[in-house]
Amino acid sequence: MTTPTTFAPLQNDTFLRACWRQATDHTPVWLMRQAGRYLPEYRAIRARAGSFMGLATNKDYATEVTLQPLARYPLDAAILFSDILTVPDAMGLGLSFALGEGPRFASPVRDEAAVARLRVPDLNLLRYVFDAVGSIRKALTGRVPLIGFSGSPWTLACYMVEGAGSDDYRLVKTMMYQRPDLMHRMLQINADSVAAYLNAQIEAGAQAVMVFDSWGGVLADGAFQQFSLAYTARVLSQLKREHDGAIIPRIVFTKGGGLWLKKMGQLECEVLGLDWTVNIGQARHFVGDHMALQGNLDPNVLFAQPHQIEAEAIKVLDSFGAPHTGEGVGPTHIFNLGHGINQHTPPEHVSVLVNAVHAHSARLRSPGA
Amino acid sequence: MTTPTTFAPLQNDTFLRACWRQATDHTPVWLMRQAGRYLPEYRAIRARAGSFMGLATNKDYATEVTLQPLARYPLDAAILFSDILTVPDAMGLGLSFALGEGPRFASPVRDEAAVARLRVPDLNLLRYVFDAVGSIRKALTGRVPLIGFSGSPWTLACYMVEGAGSDDYRLVKTMMYQRPDLMHRMLQINADSVAAYLNAQIEAGAQAVMVFDSWGGVLADGAFQQFSLAYTARVLSQLKREHDGAIIPRIVFTKGGGLWLKKMGQLECEVLGLDWTVNIGQARHFVGDHMALQGNLDPNVLFAQPHQIEAEAIKVLDSFGAPHTGEGVGPTHIFNLGHGINQHTPPEHVSVLVNAVHAHSARLRSPGA
Repeated sequence: MTTPTTFAPLQNDTFLRACWRQATDHTPVWLMRQAGRYLPEYRAIRARAGSFMGLATNKDYATEVTLQPLARYPLDAAILFSDILTVPDAMGLGLSFALGEGPRFASPVRDEAAVARLRVPDLNLLRYVFDAVGSIRKALTGRVPLIGFSGSPWTLACYMVEGAGSDDYRLVKTMMYQRPDLMHRMLQINADSVAAYLNAQIEAGAQAVMVFDSWGGVLADGAFQQFSLAYTARVLSQLKREHDGAIIPRIVFTKGGGLWLKKMGQLECEVLGLDWTVNIGQARHFVGDHMALQGNLDPNVLFAQPHQIEAEAIKVLDSFGAPHTGEGVGPTHIFNLGHGINQHTPPEHVSVLVNAVHAHSARLRSPGA
Repeated sequence: MTTPTTFAPLQNDTFLRACWRQATDHTPVWLMRQAGRYLPEYRAIRARAGSFMGLATNKDYATEVTLQPLARYPLDAAILFSDILTVPDAMGLGLSFALGEGPRFASPVRDEAAVARLRVPDLNLLRYVFDAVGSIRKALTGRVPLIGFSGSPWTLACYMVEGAGSDDYRLVKTMMYQRPDLMHRMLQINADSVAAYLNAQIEAGAQAVMVFDSWGGVLADGAFQQFSLAYTARVLSQLKREHDGAIIPRIVFTKGGGLWLKKMGQLECEVLGLDWTVNIGQARHFVGDHMALQGNLDPNVLFAQPHQIEAEAIKVLDSFGAPHTGEGVGPTHIFNLGHGINQHTPPEHVSVLVNAVHAHSARLRSPGA
């Protein structure tokens, strides 16, 4: 689809090495939603663009916004500035964001006829995303790797049926319990769409990809395995493994998925994301050391005082335990929040966090530690 | 406080026997929020009362509403019609409910001065609750036992600080991470208040009590143990064990608490409530058989078709496993939803559920099963 481009060689491969469970001299750190409303420079561009989609669909804006947090903080990865719901938008559901509110679909999918109309979207409608990926890769000049992403099939289905966020998921669960056949059909189409979408991001230059299963945790035990996990697995099985001479690591994050870590440890991916309810040391025990773990500080810790933020970051690092050093593969940790950063976060507190993670994790690796 | 009253002897002790892990001829069932907006007869009284608090503070209304679901369904327990937030209201925070919205406090507790002003409230301000308990016990004429309840200290603190529901718990967690001393002070007062409140409900006639830790599950691992579980334990340690010749069973329910079941299994209570994300069979394994388990059907199952509701109820019963029969104590299950019933639930579907639980659980106990 895109003409192969040669990008600058990578200078900081800490994040990718940790994805591959190789030793690093510090624990890499990036933050979900690191490019976002807590940054005044983000809010300035957002105002210029007029709307969230105006921002996300313009590759120059998307590039500028993606790089903003890297100018402030020594983060070890960049993540594409976009939304988890671009795929259903390309299916024709009409995504919009009212200021101060969450996403909304003009045409939610609520009956058999609407499900029957669903198709894997024409990827040309998502070209703005792939163009942004290429543009960001160029602008990064190899500083850190770029992560691409999508919502999971189940999370997309939640928004597609509800038409917006929900606090009880009544409509999507009604369809799931009443017409599992329709739900399975929608999830198949979503999975195949997400796989094609992530593959196109990889071809455009994404050096890792992440599936956000933001709403997997609202499902009952049993339903989660059948309606969320199975379709995340379907996405993973279709992903390109290699591009431009590099193997592409895959990250899966299910918010509220802590009860299913053992099952998630069987997914065909390199990294599992954890929310803050999970004890990351115990998670290692449940998942096993064949996957890297990413997470999992409560984003609200960033509202505490600097010395408290440092202490909480150290707690997470220490809970993960002794970092892998030396040759070969071993347990690795990618530091992150347990969910997206809060829009009210004081930006200077993010510096405190990133520096604390780098400093303490380097100390943990020093011979005298 | 109240003059001892003699109430009619209990006719259906299935629920209480299950709390005590004694054999029953079927699995008892009741539903969180069983008296509520999904019932047209509830909405009619609610309209007459003018406001939710108008309803909850009038003992005749509260009695009528509590008994409404029992007139429709062969439920095995009644639960006091009230709100989890009556205690902070009595502390002077000014509870109100706008129609179609959640609870709101006029004077949230957001700084050191506000915390310093907090006191265990004068229980006379909650007399309307104890009056309702006595009135309901009389009106029940011994049909089924009456459950009293309160919010947990942490859940009360969430509302007291946020002033309303929240989707990120930013304010309460900011206080917790930044000023743990203030949070501990508030939680101590809340715990002592909740204990006094539940003891007064017991004296007024409540035959079991339940602590709703609706927001324990938003806490990080570590913070949950320190700020929620420890104060639930503080409540439990102060509860009256016996009233009017009967021992009073204690139920604790933490929504989203599935990751901490092992710890919760060490609480000084008889019953643990489970939400629908938990596999109830595995929960037995984690908790051990020294506690009864209550739960845990996804309330959204009630939007499916009758045969699907039956199948899902049977799944939960079968997942719990072989019921205890014969003498002595053994594993017991109290069937419930994993959270409050949804206001849009078709009332006739509740009949299907209750009948399915009774029929299937009786079959499981029949010699040929």
